[in-house]
Amino acid sequence: VTSDPAELCRLIAAVGPLDEAAMAAARARQAQLIKPPGSLGRLEELACQLAGITGQPRPRLERAVVLVLAADHGVVSEGVSAYPAAVTAQMARAVLAGQAAISVLARQAGAAVQVIDIGTAGDGVAAPAASPGGALIVRKWRRGTANLAAGPALARAEALAALTAGAAIATAAAAAGGTVVLTGELGIGNTTAAAALTAVMTGQPPAATTGRGAGLDDAGLRRKIAIVERALAVNRPDPADPLGVLAAVGGLEIAGLVGVILGAAAGRAPVVLDGYITGAAALVAVALCPAARGYLIAGHCSAEPGHRLALAHLGLAPLLDLDLRLGEGTGAVLALPLVRAAAATLDQMATFAEAGAAGKGNR
Amino acid sequence: VTSDPAELCRLIAAVGPLDEAAMAAARARQAQLIKPPGSLGRLEELACQLAGITGQPRPRLERAVVLVLAADHGVVSEGVSAYPAAVTAQMARAVLAGQAAISVLARQAGAAVQVIDIGTAGDGVAAPAASPGGALIVRKWRRGTANLAAGPALARAEALAALTAGAAIATAAAAAGGTVVLTGELGIGNTTAAAALTAVMTGQPPAATTGRGAGLDDAGLRRKIAIVERALAVNRPDPADPLGVLAAVGGLEIAGLVGVILGAAAGRAPVVLDGYITGAAALVAVALCPAARGYLIAGHCSAEPGHRLALAHLGLAPLLDLDLRLGEGTGAVLALPLVRAAAATLDQMATFAEAGAAGKGNR
Repeated sequence: VTSDPAELCRLIAAVGPLDEAAMAAARARQAQLIKPPGSLGRLEELACQLAGITGQPRPRLERAVVLVLAADHGVVSEGVSAYPAAVTAQMARAVLAGQAAISVLARQAGAAVQVIDIGTAGDGVAAPAASPGGALIVRKWRRGTANLAAGPALARAEALAALTAGAAIATAAAAAGGTVVLTGELGIGNTTAAAALTAVMTGQPPAATTGRGAGLDDAGLRRKIAIVERALAVNRPDPADPLGVLAAVGGLEIAGLVGVILGAAAGRAPVVLDGYITGAAALVAVALCPAARGYLIAGHCSAEPGHRLALAHLGLAPLLDLDLRLGEGTGAVLALPLVRAAAATLDQMATFAEAGAAGKGNR
Repeated sequence: VTSDPAELCRLIAAVGPLDEAAMAAARARQAQLIKPPGSLGRLEELACQLAGITGQPRPRLERAVVLVLAADHGVVSEGVSAYPAAVTAQMARAVLAGQAAISVLARQAGAAVQVIDIGTAGDGVAAPAASPGGALIVRKWRRGTANLAAGPALARAEALAALTAGAAIATAAAAAGGTVVLTGELGIGNTTAAAALTAVMTGQPPAATTGRGAGLDDAGLRRKIAIVERALAVNRPDPADPLGVLAAVGGLEIAGLVGVILGAAAGRAPVVLDGYITGAAALVAVALCPAARGYLIAGHCSAEPGHRLALAHLGLAPLLDLDLRLGEGTGAVLALPLVRAAAATLDQMATFAEAGAAGKGNR
């Protein structure tokens, strides 16, 4: 792992524009398929986007991997979460054991799971004896962040190192080709960091970007908003310096997710975003590298109110809107069948000519 | 096939209420799973509904079948569709050949497909030499409906016979247990019938329930609205007589779908609705048998404007909203992974006790 800033420059430079020729070819084929033009709605745009991402006129997405980055947050000491920090590592263990929501959903969807301990507190993730739920990767040089309400959560070099580690993992996942990269996370307290990041990167006030997370009551929500306000007052993060914002009010898993997005995009893999945390990471990733935006697919819109603001700022329309607020990557994996459906209809449906059927107006 | 009205009474009486005990057990388990309470959003309600439908506290949905009912519409002679009537049978053949959108999506989702020719025009569906896309069932005693703008589309006995045939097919599909029944249809001109049915059953004017179908231009849309208005003026259908409405302004595939819904509900199978046509069938089914409503899951909301009105009238919130307007069952099959996800998370996630993790507030 490196915290060399030149590595980030190389990563950003490696993210190319979408392949216009592949998109044009996909659009042309789409128009010939045995259905009324446009009748597959958003799946048609999505199929063209997938062609542009992969550079293939008929993209085949044979693999999918959920990268679940786990880390802890010093701000939990302020009482911003309904759960204790120890739950981060416990949930990571449950994912590996195949017991968590993401384990069940990934198995159902045929997606592999990798849990990346990129900064859990204490002794970290105790891998279970059997881990049918996925593989554990440890990329950890710090046990959770500092309290972002009292100063920077991370040193700039630490944020960069986590970002670089995430990028390397995503690049490796994308290397096989035809791989959908799904983003996930575990981190008690991380909706507080996401609220601070989203406030800075979208220019919205903390009261608009801060929600109940895993289940705060009204008093808890008020306290959390005040904490986010304090974090911004103490750190004065500058949205023109996204890496600085990430270090000041982010988290190790969020920095890792920024890297995952950039690494997957550099590897021409589609990136399916999950909820609020991965959306906050996307705000930073796109600010660092605007070309990365084209590689993003918003899996769902979370019940956390700030997520809608983040998606709007990114110009992304979510595929699902089911009041989910679990994280782990669940909203991304639930959207995976739609991503595959978009690619499969483009690739596998017959054209009117192939089917010998009458097209529109041929009566 | 029978057109005995007593058969309809037996069918309606066979649809029982949701199983409250199974729902309560599902809700109790849901509260113990390793996630913040409510964090799986609409999937949690859906899982409880599936428990109520199947009578199982942890429903296992191992099978899924898409019933694609195909029939033609005399009203096509009025120029209400951008496609000729021959396309209905051609598309049915393409489904059987595995070439259509529903073929691709059902294969991807692991759902079986049955194409039911319940009244196509002319020589009907010519089954291809190989039919990897599904099985063909013929339940046909009439080649398309009469022009609903000039008189009743069907005799009451014909509508009843199609309904009874659809019910028998769904009952057979549900008999294995653990089966999700997905509704689909093919029928050039059938958005005109759906617009008329929806206007009658919801009390909305034809201008609000009539859309562009497979791709009408502005002039075509105006003509189609006038046709629907004429159909209502000529037939004067009475919403208090749902079977009469179905005969007057429905269609053979729509009548069959009413039967599919009732037959599946009688067999305690969840029914996933597709778009506007299946929504219109649901309006009739629920008017005939209010208990059937609890068995319905709205797969998606179609781009056809009347569909949103139909779903609102039924009190159903769609799982997907992707601007689809293809029919065939595509929106239902795209929602199938979400239905399975709801059941799988309820059944397969660990409880906090099982995982040895700390719950909310246990810090």
